[in-house]
This record gives sequence, C-alpha cells and structure tokens, in this order.
Amino acid sequence: MDEHVTNIINDLKKDNVQAYLLTKFTNVEYISNYRPTSFAFCVIKEEPIIYVSSMDMEIAKNNSSLEVKEYESMDVMIKELKSEGIKNLAIEPSLPFGSYEKLKDDFTIDSKTYIDKQRMIKTTLEIEKIKKATEIAQKSFLQLDILNNKNTEKEIAFDLVRLMIENGASKESFDTIVTSGASSSLPHAIPQAKRLEKPILIDWGAIFEGYCSDNTRTIVYNEKQQEIWDIVAEAHDKAIKAIRPGLKCIEIDKVARDIIADYGYGDRFIHSTGHSLGLDIHETPGFSIRDETVIEEGMVITVEPGIYLEGEFGVRLEDTVAIYKKANVIGDLPLKIE
Amino acid sequence: MDEHVTNIINDLKKDNVQAYLLTKFTNVEYISNYRPTSFAFCVIKEEPIIYVSSMDMEIAKNNSSLEVKEYESMDVMIKELKSEGIKNLAIEPSLPFGSYEKLKDDFTIDSKTYIDKQRMIKTTLEIEKIKKATEIAQKSFLQLDILNNKNTEKEIAFDLVRLMIENGASKESFDTIVTSGASSSLPHAIPQAKRLEKPILIDWGAIFEGYCSDNTRTIVYNEKQQEIWDIVAEAHDKAIKAIRPGLKCIEIDKVARDIIADYGYGDRFIHSTGHSLGLDIHETPGFSIRDETVIEEGMVITVEPGIYLEGEFGVRLEDTVAIYKKANVIGDLPLKIE
Repeated sequence: MDEHVTNIINDLKKDNVQAYLLTKFTNVEYISNYRPTSFAFCVIKEEPIIYVSSMDMEIAKNNSSLEVKEYESMDVMIKELKSEGIKNLAIEPSLPFGSYEKLKDDFTIDSKTYIDKQRMIKTTLEIEKIKKATEIAQKSFLQLDILNNKNTEKEIAFDLVRLMIENGASKESFDTIVTSGASSSLPHAIPQAKRLEKPILIDWGAIFEGYCSDNTRTIVYNEKQQEIWDIVAEAHDKAIKAIRPGLKCIEIDKVARDIIADYGYGDRFIHSTGHSLGLDIHETPGFSIRDETVIEEGMVITVEPGIYLEGEFGVRLEDTVAIYKKANVIGDLPLKIE
Repeated sequence: MDEHVTNIINDLKKDNVQAYLLTKFTNVEYISNYRPTSFAFCVIKEEPIIYVSSMDMEIAKNNSSLEVKEYESMDVMIKELKSEGIKNLAIEPSLPFGSYEKLKDDFTIDSKTYIDKQRMIKTTLEIEKIKKATEIAQKSFLQLDILNNKNTEKEIAFDLVRLMIENGASKESFDTIVTSGASSSLPHAIPQAKRLEKPILIDWGAIFEGYCSDNTRTIVYNEKQQEIWDIVAEAHDKAIKAIRPGLKCIEIDKVARDIIADYGYGDRFIHSTGHSLGLDIHETPGFSIRDETVIEEGMVITVEPGIYLEGEFGVRLEDTVAIYKKANVIGDLPLKIE
C-alpha cells in the first residue's frame, strides 16, 4: 500500500478512529492517484475503498491505486460501513454540512486534518512537479514580451495561458490576473478589455501533472511606483531570508508586515504574506497573522507581500519557496522586470 | 431592497429563522451583485450585511447592493450577530463542516435551501444572459470548422475557448471537453495532445455576465456510431418534448432512460439526463432518477442523454432548455453536425 495511505492509517490508529472519509477531489487524488470528475467517497480504513460515480468508473479503474466500487446510494454506503463494525468516522473540515447531516445519525463524527497535515510536507517528486510548473509559467511570461505588448489585459492573460499550455502545462493554476493602472489596487482584479496602463501587475501560474505554480510581478514606471516597489521587494526578500524550520508561520508574516508598516503602509497590506500550494493553489499552512504552524522541511509556500493604494495602483511581488534548511526560491525569474 | 433579498427575508419569517448565512460565492453574487474572490459571510436578516475580506473591500464597495463591512474575525462576527439578538441561524447545505463547527456553540443551526429554490426560477434577464452565453458558445463552435480541423484535441479545446472569449465570453463555463475515438466513452474526458480520431465528442460552454451555457455534440462516422447516435438523439428529442410544468424531474429522466434501455443500452447511460444551470454550471433541480422536484416555468435545465461503450466510443447530445408552457431549446445549433 502507498506510503500516504499507510501514514493516514497510522494516524487513525493513534486516535482510535475507525475510518476517514475523503471527498475533496485533490485529497482523493493525493491518496489514490485518481481525480474524481463528479463526486467520490474515499474511505481510508484497514481495507481502503473509493465509492465512485458510475460515470467515473472507467477512469477510476484505470488510475486508482485503491480499490474502487460503483456508488449506488448513501444508504448502501452507510450500510456497508456499518456492517464492517465502523461506528466512528473522521471527516474533512471541508465536507459540506449537507453530507455531514446524512452521516451523523449512523456514526460518531469528528473532523480531522490528517490529510492536510500530510500534504503540508511535499515529497521530492511533488517538489519537482511544482518546479516544473513554475519553469513553464516563468518561461511563458518571458515569451509574452510584456514591455512591448500592445494587446489588452484580457488578451495578454489569454496569451499567457496559451503559452503555458504550449509549454506543457495542463492549464492555468487559477484565473490569470493581468491588471494595470488603478485597477492594480485590487488584489484579485479581473483582466479588462483595455490596453495596458501603468503599473502592470501580473499574477499567474501553471499546473503540471496536477501541481500548481504561483508568481506575481509588478512593472513600475514612475518614482512613486518605484518607491512602493522597493518597499514590497524589501519585505519579499527579508521574509524569504527569515524562513527556517522551527520558526512559526506567523513570524514570517510579521517580518514582511513590520517592514511595510515601518514605511507607513501597514493598513495597505490587505492580505496574508503567503500560502502553501501543491495539488491545490491554496493549501495550509500560510504565512498569516493567525497561523501558528511550525515551519518544517518539505513545505512549499508563497511569499507575496503587497501594497494597495485604492484609486491609485497596487504592487505585489510573489515567489514560491521550497523549504529545506532554509528557503530556496523556485524558478529564476528576476524580481525586477525592465 | 432587491426582490431576491425580500423573498429570502419572507422565507425566513415564515420559518421563524432570524438570519441566513450565505458563503458560496455565486449565492453572495446572486443576492448582492458582488462576487467574492477570497471569502465572504453574507448574513440575510432585517438589515442584511456582508462581512468582506479586507482584500475584497474595494471591489465589494463598488459592486454590492447590500451593506459591506470588513471582516475582522469569526469571534467579532459572532459577537455582533448575538448583540442583535440572533439565536437561530440558517446555513447553506454546502457550508463546510469546519465553519459550522465554529458557529454551532453560539447559534441553533439548521441548513436551508431558500436560496437554491429561488435560484431555480430564472428571471427574464437571467434567461437572456444564458441565451447570450449559448449564442457565443455555438457561434464559436461553428467557427472551429471541426470537420476540417487538423489540430490536436487539446489545441481544439484551447481554440474553442479563445473563440468564445473573442466573441464576448468572460471565460469557459467548465473545462472544455474535446475527446475522440475510444476516450469518448469517458463522460468527463480530458483533451489529449493527439489528432482527432472518430467519433468526435465536444462538450463546451461560455460564461456571459456570470451566466453559463452548456452544449454537447458528437460527430459520428460509421454505421455502429450512427446507430448509437440515433438512439441518443431520440432520447434527447423525446425528453425535451415531454417537459412541461407540473411534471416531476424524475419523469423526464425516465423518458430518456426508458428509450435507451429499450434499445438494450440501459446500463451504458451512466449519468443523469440533465442539470439546471445559471451562475453555476450545475444547479438544482436535475433530470435524475432521484429528483422529485416539480418542474416550473422559468427553470433552465440541460437535456444530455448519452451512451458510453467502454473501450469503443461514447455519444452524448446536449441542449439547454428554458421552460415556459413547454421547453424551448436555447440556441439554434443543429443536433447533427456533418
């Protein structure tokens, strides 16, 4: 049996939990190599099984490392689990309340993050895939020739995705952000059908073999923009330098946040300093003012401070780091694009 | 106040529920015109309010028809709701269990589908947007010149999305399916880097002003494929003809399913006959073997029977219908592409 599955079974035993229900597509994929396309109920127990939608049976049989069985109904699944003597069931915190309600009369239920904790620590192979996704994304960015690009934000976003796919990505890892001028002050701006204004902020990533990349660059043009860029770059660089196993995530957030606050823009840094990524673009832990998770080797986390001046412009700079004894930036795209 | 909000408040009053928490992005958008980009807690009550992530404040203030307030923490939000005397709280069935856990000690909680029920019945404006999305998608499909297209499945999928965006879509409404040959037997096949084999199955849709479209066409080339196509087309046509307000969804599913079963392919029709769409690509109700919902005027639902011969090929034909006294097919793309 796969190491991921064995680890989870050991977690279950420690807590005297009889079975762990996984439904989130990337959790099922992580544990079985099969990514559902409609729904699936993966039950980790001594004899793990995935109840698969009939329309996914063919793809599941081809890809899953765990036994698959066609899902008939919630009642049948519950009956089968109970017939094995299962009385307590762990669920993911992300399980919809409606699904919990269908299970709560038959099992003692507790939410557990065993799988999230395991997914926090990437294997060498997982890091290789994130690196490859990053390389594809960065190469594609350079091919865009953004400084001489006369297309609209929307067209550029589209061209960037096309380049990433031509370069081997399966798709973009999230809706590509190409924004410019005043709308760059929206952290999640939607590309518009307008020619590029200044500054230009691009936040983009690729998916390679299921794994995501994530980068942001902001290209600035005048003194005020450069001044803000320098502050964000300092926060970016010093936060990355501060990362090491044993520190808490919140401490890295504080490094970036304090620098920006010292320059007087504390209230204009309106999001966290970073998030983990992997099969999902947003995973735990994150560099945030709430996350007390201790940093460990094998984590892959973004560092993306930003300053957003409403009605004027915004600057964000983002790299993804793989954490060993220290943080290694993934990819080699310069921070300064000019 | 917007009619959608007033209707929900009336639902709450009828059930003596003091407040209704909406977190699903499209629910928040439906009710306020603001689509969150990270998270939001929209509380429908006498004085509705949306707690907005700090990074979304600017966009929320610009777009929301409801009052917005910067989210500080779950504790602050709970305290404010309690200070208004709120003791019972309705939630969406889709709310993650982890969020429910944070609320359950402070409120009596029940899941309610008020908003889903309201979203089932589309306004004239909503239907216009779905029509426009469908027109964009169908026009783009014809521009592909699929019969003479020498590109790979993956390239064709990409070209179709590019055309939809050029024709006015904001994006695709789901991952475009271009599949051919044996892999067409996978209902949710992923486009491959291979030239088109036969038959060719394309399942695609556009988003226009937030609203989705959804169509499928299968192009067949030999007698066996044509025989299967004819059965699916008969199920498609007769199911659409059978639709009228007052019948139950399950009855329409039965029309399509019985035809396919009569020809001996009952166990090869491995999904439901259709699903509603709107701001989401999958909404309720659906034409399925479990859905007892009574059909009403204003519903917009797909009809998409299919037959999947594992290892050989699959055929699916899909149109979206708007339901008035009978079902009107949206768009005018012929079922038979040749």
